[in-house]
Amino acid sequence: MKALLLVAHGSRRQQSNDEVVQLAERLKNNCSEQYGIIHAGFLELADTLIPDGIKKCADDGASSIIVLPYFLNSGRHVVEDIPEIVEQTRPDYPDIDIKVAQHLGASDMMMDLLIASENSTS
Amino acid sequence: MKALLLVAHGSRRQQSNDEVVQLAERLKNNCSEQYGIIHAGFLELADTLIPDGIKKCADDGASSIIVLPYFLNSGRHVVEDIPEIVEQTRPDYPDIDIKVAQHLGASDMMMDLLIASENSTS
Repeated sequence: MKALLLVAHGSRRQQSNDEVVQLAERLKNNCSEQYGIIHAGFLELADTLIPDGIKKCADDGASSIIVLPYFLNSGRHVVEDIPEIVEQTRPDYPDIDIKVAQHLGASDMMMDLLIASENSTS
Repeated sequence: MKALLLVAHGSRRQQSNDEVVQLAERLKNNCSEQYGIIHAGFLELADTLIPDGIKKCADDGASSIIVLPYFLNSGRHVVEDIPEIVEQTRPDYPDIDIKVAQHLGASDMMMDLLIASENSTS
């Protein structure tokens, strides 16, 4: 079964972390055909760290895991920290194919999203 | 003339800031019908801070400015800092209608973007 682990930075503000968990929940309803398992994980400052998130996916029976960095810029966290943590965790799951996807900001669709966002002022 | 100011956090890593400036440039080519003026600005750690970005838009002849927070979560920066800085700058431009848009992460299209992103693994 394919799993998706949405990885955000994590915040001292609980509401911010909750938003990511809720997003993962909504995503579960929107792409259950692609992914049987979806969890949220955090780089730091939150309860479910990346290795915990990978463990959740494994415990749910994942045969492969896509780690998707929920980040806009290719900063150190995206370029070094997340891949490094995934590498360290990999040996614990020799039978699971774990891949890190491009960070969200690298998506070709970002332009469309920005153009659409401009129209929603508060 | 309508202006868009894309506001990111700003990073000590220059490449990260450059990405935002480049994104604003690409956006200029993609929605020049909606916005005659597009600039990037930063909350901190970069050259063009929010008041500088607003000034750039004003100097280019903006009659209205949409400030679009390039942030995924509704953290303190989105909820307090950016609106506060915009409020402080507003009196300097009594003839320009300055609005803060919802942050990027609040976009309805985020779900589509996430689903699409999962397919691009590195």
